[in-house]
Amino acid sequence: MNLEPVNLTQALSSFDDVYSPRIVTRMNDYDVRIAHAKGEHLWHVHSDTDEFFLVLDGHLDIAIRDTDGSEHTVTLGQGDVYVVPKGTEHKPASAAGADILMFEPAQTLTTGDWHEGEVPAHVDSTTGHDL
Amino acid sequence: MNLEPVNLTQALSSFDDVYSPRIVTRMNDYDVRIAHAKGEHLWHVHSDTDEFFLVLDGHLDIAIRDTDGSEHTVTLGQGDVYVVPKGTEHKPASAAGADILMFEPAQTLTTGDWHEGEVPAHVDSTTGHDL
Repeated sequence: MNLEPVNLTQALSSFDDVYSPRIVTRMNDYDVRIAHAKGEHLWHVHSDTDEFFLVLDGHLDIAIRDTDGSEHTVTLGQGDVYVVPKGTEHKPASAAGADILMFEPAQTLTTGDWHEGEVPAHVDSTTGHDL
Repeated sequence: MNLEPVNLTQALSSFDDVYSPRIVTRMNDYDVRIAHAKGEHLWHVHSDTDEFFLVLDGHLDIAIRDTDGSEHTVTLGQGDVYVVPKGTEHKPASAAGADILMFEPAQTLTTGDWHEGEVPAHVDSTTGHDL
């Protein structure tokens, strides 16, 4: 846990990597993570946990694959929050770029318990990095 | 859980009550809550959980009472995040007002497992209200 306040704007400006979350602080057994989003992430699933998103800047599209195989996209702008339910296949993407905040259990892998295809070079498969 | 995105600015404008958190969404067994802060909350403790704060607008002061009885204040501005460790006596306050987001286990009481003195009329002792 970080015992000092952290300013999200400063924290976001301290790194440039895309889809490579930094752990801003921890509470109980959860991480608060921030990331830059740009381009397409990949389809993946977190089998055992929901995942919370808050868009701090820009726009984030989260493609959702329903249990019947159909897909729809949730479009999030600045100040929008959204929870991807556990077990739901999803793929974040951002054409113009976004800064996002996520809550999720510590050790949650960015590419999930399952992912579709190869992990692209611009996506970091990680449980998060310290600031 | 709210399966639709929620815009925090719109959600905050949907109520005026001070220190009366609304549950924006849930993830796993946690609430994401938003509140307006104005004036002094009261000294209280959450014995079993950390409490995450993000200041969305304005300034929030969190007075912290250390185990030796000494007190200090953590001052948070827009975009600042801070975690009050479990078991820590604390008292939020905002002279000019603030809008805040909190992350904490569902059923966490705003006035904690212990609080000092009477609950003031402008503080809602609640586990959060739906939007």
